Amino acid sequence: MSRTLEAIQYTRGNLCILNQLALPHETIFEPVLNVQDGHAAIKTMKTRGAPAIAIVAALSLAVDAHARLEKNEFGSVDQAKEFLLSSLDYLKTSRPTAVNLFDAAAKLATLINNVAQDAKESSQVVNACIEAAEQMLVDDVQDNKNIGKYGAEYIVNNVRDKSNISVLTHCNTGSLATAGWGTALGIIRDLHHNGQLKHAFCTETRPYNQGSRLTAYELVYESIPSTLICDSMASALLRLNPNVQAIIVGADRVAANGDTANKIGTYQLAITAKHHGILFIVAAPSTSIDLSMQSGKEIVIEERPANELVTTTGLLEDNQSATVRTAAQGIHVWNPSFDVTPSDLVSAIVTEKGVAVKQPGQSEFDLKSFLS
Amino acid sequence: MSRTLEAIQYTRGNLCILNQLALPHETIFEPVLNVQDGHAAIKTMKTRGAPAIAIVAALSLAVDAHARLEKNEFGSVDQAKEFLLSSLDYLKTSRPTAVNLFDAAAKLATLINNVAQDAKESSQVVNACIEAAEQMLVDDVQDNKNIGKYGAEYIVNNVRDKSNISVLTHCNTGSLATAGWGTALGIIRDLHHNGQLKHAFCTETRPYNQGSRLTAYELVYESIPSTLICDSMASALLRLNPNVQAIIVGADRVAANGDTANKIGTYQLAITAKHHGILFIVAAPSTSIDLSMQSGKEIVIEERPANELVTTTGLLEDNQSATVRTAAQGIHVWNPSFDVTPSDLVSAIVTEKGVAVKQPGQSEFDLKSFLS
Repeated sequence: MSRTLEAIQYTRGNLCILNQLALPHETIFEPVLNVQDGHAAIKTMKTRGAPAIAIVAALSLAVDAHARLEKNEFGSVDQAKEFLLSSLDYLKTSRPTAVNLFDAAAKLATLINNVAQDAKESSQVVNACIEAAEQMLVDDVQDNKNIGKYGAEYIVNNVRDKSNISVLTHCNTGSLATAGWGTALGIIRDLHHNGQLKHAFCTETRPYNQGSRLTAYELVYESIPSTLICDSMASALLRLNPNVQAIIVGADRVAANGDTANKIGTYQLAITAKHHGILFIVAAPSTSIDLSMQSGKEIVIEERPANELVTTTGLLEDNQSATVRTAAQGIHVWNPSFDVTPSDLVSAIVTEKGVAVKQPGQSEFDLKSFLS
Repeated sequence: MSRTLEAIQYTRGNLCILNQLALPHETIFEPVLNVQDGHAAIKTMKTRGAPAIAIVAALSLAVDAHARLEKNEFGSVDQAKEFLLSSLDYLKTSRPTAVNLFDAAAKLATLINNVAQDAKESSQVVNACIEAAEQMLVDDVQDNKNIGKYGAEYIVNNVRDKSNISVLTHCNTGSLATAGWGTALGIIRDLHHNGQLKHAFCTETRPYNQGSRLTAYELVYESIPSTLICDSMASALLRLNPNVQAIIVGADRVAANGDTANKIGTYQLAITAKHHGILFIVAAPSTSIDLSMQSGKEIVIEERPANELVTTTGLLEDNQSATVRTAAQGIHVWNPSFDVTPSDLVSAIVTEKGVAVKQPGQSEFDLKSFLS
């Protein structure tokens, strides 16, 4: 049995995180002892990915409060409540744009206030907060595991050749981007653990190389048979390797009709999947589905700095990190962070609640009905 | 009038080449005084591209022989012939796999032998050789200029909106890859010089970045309005920018039915061109058409070292060149150097002899008839 990468390692009173700044070149787990450590891990990007940030913030509070409780530092319910609420406010300042972080902090604050109303002892408030933080980790990983399970089942039941399933994925959607297991990469993990995966291919995912740095790292770490390709090689791969029967990607946001915003390059992969007649699968928690958006036309494409495309950061021969400029000076650059894949190119949307598909003859999904 | 990049600058007795090793960061023209300089320029890759190598070899012999003739160094016809033939043999060792170089050397050797048979003076042999080398440069550039002219005409006559023609190109097919002007990039130069080009987009062309390094350099050098994108962004570009009405690429080899082997990523661009209903144009000299090959199925895909994909070379902040490793250690890599685009995805094949198109209702070209 191969090991599973856990970027967040937690038991009550103990939290360790994988320092993603050192990836893919070094695997360094670092202890998070208190909210200061949690704040720093998020602020310095040692922890990345929207769900992971929220969980690490909550768990850093859990271990901090646990240690203080053991030392009897809380003299009253109010003192405990005050520490917990002010810590949440402090943790929110680590990444002021992180929606998941603010959601998680709001949920914990509501709970703390509610429990504190009737509590007789500080331990009641503290333990309620710890248990809620722990539940967030459990729920998040469980959601991903369900995505993995449903996605693997869907693929096995819908490919031409069940005994030779290879897949291609894009960007990083694994343990490094989520609280654990992963979405699109979670499906690949499931296929592998079930003995149903022949080979996984991952794209570099230009310009920021999340594929060659992070997904490749996860695949190697777990000894999943795998190969890295350039984004431009996907079509040649599909033409030459008939085992590649599905492309699996994550999603930043999914509109009510199934139009999917995801890392730039996703749309091109969906076109080539259609051209070659293979499955194109979007894997995301149901919270990524935004029913307020009828279609992808409403999604505004954000552009990122040109620098990300004309320079590359990596390791010199002496293992020092360095950034080199590759492109010609003076060239203009277009660097959209994501693109929108229209629903007609998507075979299925896999969530923790199950697999959404289109009705026969329809080019759009009805995700409102799916979620209701 | 904007300047035109000439990587090979020649007048009788004088040859300068653009040192491509310093590109895109520095523009350094270096004199080539003799066959030793020509040999070194090819061997160290200061000169690149199959046609350019052959021309630089021939012209290095031309300037060398010209200088010796001026100094009366040739005592007899036989002495001149001996110098010229042995120089050609020596030049061939600079890149033993370059077919164009061997072809050019063979043609010059035949000419030298023929002229020497009836020659009275060494100058007759030497001047015949110089003129033949000069003609090679003229012919090669003229072929490219014809490709540019025919290609631009074809595009203007076949796009939806003549007044807003933007195009996308892949890899480098310009002055840096040919004897001058370029094939696919030559068409873009023509459109620009005719005032018919709105904007040129070029891909990075992973993994070796010929697009971001060389094509971007040429576009900036000539002040052609242009933008660099990642290979994965082509489809998003076509979806968002209706002015992009053609993708233009070069070719390593074209089979008799129009199947085209070209830089990896070309096939994927052809698929997205078809999906978006725009022109997909292959530009190449007719010598790239290999009638001995009925279809692209006979073309064997060559794989290149993994290193090319997992490391990137560029310039550090202090302007020193450096190579950094980006990808996770231990990941397998697939690095095919080119792919084959089936003829049904190709709108037109532009050569110096004119534009080949398919007969109505046919999915394949009849290039045998086209060339006869």
